[in-house]
Amino acid sequence: MNLKILAKELNLSFSTVSKALRDSHEISYETKSRVIAKANELNYQVNPLASNFRKQKTKTIALIIPEVVNDFFGPVINGIESIAQEKGYHVLIYMTHEDRQKEISIFKLLQNGRVDGIMLSLSEQTCDFTHLKELKEKGVPLILFDRITDQLDVSTVTTDNSAGGKRATEHLIEKGCRRIGFLAISKTVSVSTGRMSGYLQALKENSMNTEDELILYCDGDDRMNKDLIRKLLTSKNRPDGIFASVETLAISTYEVCEELGLNIPKDLKVIAFSNSYLAALLNPSLTAIAQPAFEMGREAAATLVNLVEKKESRFRPQRTEIKSRLIVRNSTR
Amino acid sequence: MNLKILAKELNLSFSTVSKALRDSHEISYETKSRVIAKANELNYQVNPLASNFRKQKTKTIALIIPEVVNDFFGPVINGIESIAQEKGYHVLIYMTHEDRQKEISIFKLLQNGRVDGIMLSLSEQTCDFTHLKELKEKGVPLILFDRITDQLDVSTVTTDNSAGGKRATEHLIEKGCRRIGFLAISKTVSVSTGRMSGYLQALKENSMNTEDELILYCDGDDRMNKDLIRKLLTSKNRPDGIFASVETLAISTYEVCEELGLNIPKDLKVIAFSNSYLAALLNPSLTAIAQPAFEMGREAAATLVNLVEKKESRFRPQRTEIKSRLIVRNSTR
Repeated sequence: MNLKILAKELNLSFSTVSKALRDSHEISYETKSRVIAKANELNYQVNPLASNFRKQKTKTIALIIPEVVNDFFGPVINGIESIAQEKGYHVLIYMTHEDRQKEISIFKLLQNGRVDGIMLSLSEQTCDFTHLKELKEKGVPLILFDRITDQLDVSTVTTDNSAGGKRATEHLIEKGCRRIGFLAISKTVSVSTGRMSGYLQALKENSMNTEDELILYCDGDDRMNKDLIRKLLTSKNRPDGIFASVETLAISTYEVCEELGLNIPKDLKVIAFSNSYLAALLNPSLTAIAQPAFEMGREAAATLVNLVEKKESRFRPQRTEIKSRLIVRNSTR
Repeated sequence: MNLKILAKELNLSFSTVSKALRDSHEISYETKSRVIAKANELNYQVNPLASNFRKQKTKTIALIIPEVVNDFFGPVINGIESIAQEKGYHVLIYMTHEDRQKEISIFKLLQNGRVDGIMLSLSEQTCDFTHLKELKEKGVPLILFDRITDQLDVSTVTTDNSAGGKRATEHLIEKGCRRIGFLAISKTVSVSTGRMSGYLQALKENSMNTEDELILYCDGDDRMNKDLIRKLLTSKNRPDGIFASVETLAISTYEVCEELGLNIPKDLKVIAFSNSYLAALLNPSLTAIAQPAFEMGREAAATLVNLVEKKESRFRPQRTEIKSRLIVRNSTR
């Protein structure tokens, strides 16, 4: 496939196609778009040129997240925006509300050169990645952060979910817990499965049995999750420690304990992944594996900008893990 | 000023200029931009056409906020995004970090047709509005929300700060408070001055004196704010009630009370404007004037989209106030 064939297919002159691919001001926006589209269609090696075309056109990157209601994505947005300001990029924000169909329609909106690149945190429902692969094939730089998948060769930015999960579980063991419950948010979302693998590993290394009834999948609404937790905490052989994969599940645990008259930390020790100052304000204050959300936002944006500006190869995906920290507070004392 | 003169100034044919202003696909993007810029410069009546050009081009609106670290702007973004999805708009997000210079440079970025309209919550530092006036004169639809100014004829979306502030103060009076402190965040930011006017009015209607030493301007960092609150709470004639204009100042008050051994609500009753579920989780739970942040986001976006699509006149600004609610909890019992 060379430029001449492409020009012939488009019924345009060699020079027009060449100029279009170099984003010349002599060529109208519509013609450029048509050239890029056809080049993509014919698998002409258009990616570097196409993305150059896009880069000069938009200086815009898209952020696609589930939503902003939890305390994680607030500081993430701040981090992303700080890099965008430094590097002169604009940031478009989209939410999937955990709906795969919405994720797909947002991707469709972004394939026509509106953005130079995309940062995505997967919706809970997404287990088929065709729309991501299509985008990648079109040469639009893509990185995944926080909620990722191993099934795609793209750069990722996460916290050390597995190591953090292991540390959380070990902390409960050190504090004397012998039956530790794990509160997952889903069977598929990477942050949950990663933290759970750390939990399982810590149990194994400490010769503690894994028991299915100690692992709850809290993927319903608040009331349903509390029902699950209540059932666990009123069972005959109830746990003496709870590791919540996210902060909201620790709060649900607090509420169920109050209801049942269980004292934290005396009757039950609680630890959770957390990103907010809320943990310190709870009663008792919550021991946490603190995720550096602002740093993750910065790293995600910096990785994407490097890809867009070709300072990094698109063919050697980076896996960046940002370290979490254990902050011991009263819920495990 | 007519089209012929404009064409001559640009050294382009009448038909090219006319097509450019109608956003014809025959004209390159660069030429269109040049035509719009010159038309603006020469005060050609370009606004309807230019904004039409922009509208068809971008379907993008910009959100400019101080930052996302506090719990207010998270649900606001959700609300804005929900309207944007319904109406098929893209949302660009920018943060001023309370810095007027940053606000001005963001406005400069947005004057060249990148967006169809702008939603702004003013930075704390902004007391000169030249950059807003310039934008308005260029015909870019603008609305202000949450932190607004009366010095511009633009549509605004706020909560009922003054009525909410009055209700908060009356609630403390009903609960027996006789000396009520008010914690402001600034002498100029509208949300703070509006809430304070409600506070003053309630005192007046209840024949209570206004005392300067009961009003603190907490516009420093956390440590400085706590120093001010500590000084107030250790003064000879300390208040028996505190009305915090924002939730973070209520949290600082909680921390100072713990430090000083003051019991909330026995020694001091506390109420605050709040937007988050955090208030219910504090110990004691915090009585709040709850701001409908999600609804404010929706209303702001809907107002702007109506302006952009000319369903509302740009010359009759709307002042929309969304009602807050008093939620009584343990901090005032």
